[in-house]
Amino acid sequence: MNMDVKLTDLEVGYDVPALPGMDEKDIQTPCLILDMDALEANIRKMGDYARDRGMRLRVHGKMHKSVDVAKLQMRIGHAIGVCCQKVSEAEVFARGGITDILVSNEVRDPAKIDRLARLPKLGASVIVCVDDPANVADLSAAAQKHGTVLDCFVEIDCGAGRCGVTKTPAVVEIARAIAAAPGLRFKGLQAYQGAMQHIESYDERRAKLDVAIAMVKDAVAALEAVGLKPDLVSGGGTGSYYFESGSGVYNELQCGSYAFMDADYGRIRDKDGNRIDQGEWQNALFILTSVMSHAKADKAVVDAGLKAQSVDSGLPVVFGRSDVKYVKCSDEHGVIDDPGAVLKVNDKLRLVPGHCDPTCNVHDWYVGVRGGKVEVIWPVSARGRAY
Amino acid sequence: MNMDVKLTDLEVGYDVPALPGMDEKDIQTPCLILDMDALEANIRKMGDYARDRGMRLRVHGKMHKSVDVAKLQMRIGHAIGVCCQKVSEAEVFARGGITDILVSNEVRDPAKIDRLARLPKLGASVIVCVDDPANVADLSAAAQKHGTVLDCFVEIDCGAGRCGVTKTPAVVEIARAIAAAPGLRFKGLQAYQGAMQHIESYDERRAKLDVAIAMVKDAVAALEAVGLKPDLVSGGGTGSYYFESGSGVYNELQCGSYAFMDADYGRIRDKDGNRIDQGEWQNALFILTSVMSHAKADKAVVDAGLKAQSVDSGLPVVFGRSDVKYVKCSDEHGVIDDPGAVLKVNDKLRLVPGHCDPTCNVHDWYVGVRGGKVEVIWPVSARGRAY
Repeated sequence: MNMDVKLTDLEVGYDVPALPGMDEKDIQTPCLILDMDALEANIRKMGDYARDRGMRLRVHGKMHKSVDVAKLQMRIGHAIGVCCQKVSEAEVFARGGITDILVSNEVRDPAKIDRLARLPKLGASVIVCVDDPANVADLSAAAQKHGTVLDCFVEIDCGAGRCGVTKTPAVVEIARAIAAAPGLRFKGLQAYQGAMQHIESYDERRAKLDVAIAMVKDAVAALEAVGLKPDLVSGGGTGSYYFESGSGVYNELQCGSYAFMDADYGRIRDKDGNRIDQGEWQNALFILTSVMSHAKADKAVVDAGLKAQSVDSGLPVVFGRSDVKYVKCSDEHGVIDDPGAVLKVNDKLRLVPGHCDPTCNVHDWYVGVRGGKVEVIWPVSARGRAY
Repeated sequence: MNMDVKLTDLEVGYDVPALPGMDEKDIQTPCLILDMDALEANIRKMGDYARDRGMRLRVHGKMHKSVDVAKLQMRIGHAIGVCCQKVSEAEVFARGGITDILVSNEVRDPAKIDRLARLPKLGASVIVCVDDPANVADLSAAAQKHGTVLDCFVEIDCGAGRCGVTKTPAVVEIARAIAAAPGLRFKGLQAYQGAMQHIESYDERRAKLDVAIAMVKDAVAALEAVGLKPDLVSGGGTGSYYFESGSGVYNELQCGSYAFMDADYGRIRDKDGNRIDQGEWQNALFILTSVMSHAKADKAVVDAGLKAQSVDSGLPVVFGRSDVKYVKCSDEHGVIDDPGAVLKVNDKLRLVPGHCDPTCNVHDWYVGVRGGKVEVIWPVSARGRAY
C-alpha cells in the first residue's frame, strides 16, 4: 500500500472500494467515505482558530493515519506538522514528506529506538516523549550512532492515567538528563489530558483542564528556574483546545478528531450546551454500508459489522435518519431496527462511527466524495502500523 | 500483501514484526503470534472429531482470514474447504488455491454478484446463501453471463437473528426457485446458530440447539417431500459442534474459533463444567505486547491498545499470569495493574484477545513460534476484505 499506486490498475471490489469519477451509488461497501466539503470546512476552521490565537497546530496523525489528510491539513489548515503514537507511523509520515513529527509517546524497545534515531535522515525533525530518566541514555546512544539529533519532550501525566510523570521534580530531573545528553535536545513538554476529552459537560471538562494547566505551569516555572525554559508546551484535543489556547502556557495544539468527528465526540457539549457535531464541527467521516438482507419485516441487516469499525465507544449512528437505528453489531453484520420497513435491499446508509481512530485503522482506503461523485481515493497510509 | 512476498526484502519493524529464524524475544510488538504446537493440536483434534463422526469439516476462514491456516487445516485437520462471509474473502481463498468455498452469507449488490459468479473460473466450487426469492434471478443471470454454476444454500435463521428465513414454507419456496433457475443448483441448507455459541452453560446451549435442530429437521422433511433433498446441511461452531454432529440431520460443520481460541470463548463450559480453554482447546493465538512505560509504581503501560485488537467481547487476558491484569484499553495503550511492581520496561506479555475474529482483522501478519524461535510469517491474507 503506497501513495503512487496506479489506481486504474486496481479492480473495484477486490482491491479498492471505488475509483475516482465513479458515482457515489456504485461504491462497494462497507467502506470509509469522506465528505470532502465537510472535511475541508473542519480543517480550515481549526486552522484559522489556532492561527488567530498564535497557537501552533500539530494535527494528530494517529487519528486518520493518512499522509494525504495530513498534507491537506498543512495546505489549507495551518498545520505545522503531525504528531503520532508509533515509530512505524512516524516512518510513514516521514517517507510521505512530512517534515515535523512528534511521537507523542515513549519509545523503549532498542530496535524501535534505533529506527526512531534514523528518521531525521529522511529530512524530518523528530520529537519523542520521555517519562523515565533510564530512557535518556538509550535515546542518546542511538542518536549518536546515526549522527542525528532527537528532540525530546518530557511527558507529564496530567490526567490520562497512562504514561508520563506526575511530579514537577521528576519533570526537572528528566529534562536535565536530556539537556546533558549528546544527540538529544530538551524541547519542551507533552501534556495531553486525554481522559477528559469525552466528558459531556463543558464545565466539567474545564475543571479537569484547570488542574492540568496548573501542573504544567508549575513544571514550566521550575524548568525556567534551572535555565530549561521549554520551547514548546504541547497538548489539547477536540474536547479541550480552547482551554489550552487560553491558558497562557501551552503554545501547541494536538487535535485530531475535529477533522472527521465521530458519534462519541459528537455527543459532548460546547460552552452553550450544544452538541459539538451540531455547529462546531461537521461529520466528515462515514462508514458507507448496504442493506444485504431484509428477511424480517422490521429488521434490516447491513454489511458493516465489527470488521468495518470499532465499537469500543458505542455503536455507530445512522446519519440523518431518525426512522431507522443501528442496534446490534456482529463480525460482518449490523442489525438495523426498521419499524416502518422503509429500507430495501441494496439501500445504502451512512454510519457515523462510534470512535473514529480505531475505525479508520481497519480500512485500507478513504473514498472522498463531493457532489455525488468520487473525487479521490486515499490510502490509510499507516493502517496497521502499530509497532 | 500477497503470499509470494520475499520476506528477506522486508525491514523488521517497518514492514513485518519478525522474520523466520528470529528469537521470540526480538519480535517487534504489538503483533499476533501463533503457538504452532497448540495450533496444530487444535486443528488435528477437531479434524479427527469430525472424521470419526462422518461429518464434513468446512473451517470458517472468516475467523483467521489466512490462506496458510486454511491449508494447514486441510493438510492435517481433514478440512474439505472453507466458508467465509464476504465475496472479497472468497476471492482471496480462491486465488490462494482453496477449491471448495462457501460464502455463508447473502450477496445482493450487483457488482458483488458478478464477482461471485466469476469465481468458479478460478477453479473453485462456490456455494452462496439465499434468504429471498428476489435474489435468485440475479444470481442466475450472473452465472449464465459467465458460463458458471453457483451452488446455493437456503439460509435458515435458527437463532442468530440476522439473515435467513424462519419458516419452512419460505425455505421450500426459495429452494424451488433455485432448483428451477439456470446456472444455479440447490445444494442444501445453511443453519448456523450464532447467538448461542457464547452462552456459558452447556445445557443452555444444548436447549438452544435443540430448537435449531427441530427447525432444520422440519425444513428437510418438507424439502424431501417435494423432491429437493438437501445434499448438505451446514452449521455448527466451536460452542456447539457436538450438538450438530449428533443431530442426525447436519452433515457439515463450520467451526472457526477452535483453532485459535479467545478469552470470550474460553469462558464457556464443556459438558463437565470445565472452561473449554482448559482441556478441550488450547490458546494458540496471542497478542504479543511490551511494557513501554512504568512511571507509576503499580501500573505498567503496554503497547497494545484498540488498534491491536477488538474489545467488543471484553478486554484481553494476560496469559499464564495471575499477578498482573490488563484493566484499561485506549487507542495505542493498555494499562496493566501491577500491584507487586513485578513488570519492567520492555518485558513482554502474551495477551489472549477477547474476540479472535475482529482482532485478527487489524493485523497484517501472523508470527508462528515454536520452541522460542520464529518459524513462519504468514500474511493475514484477507485482512480488511470486507466488501
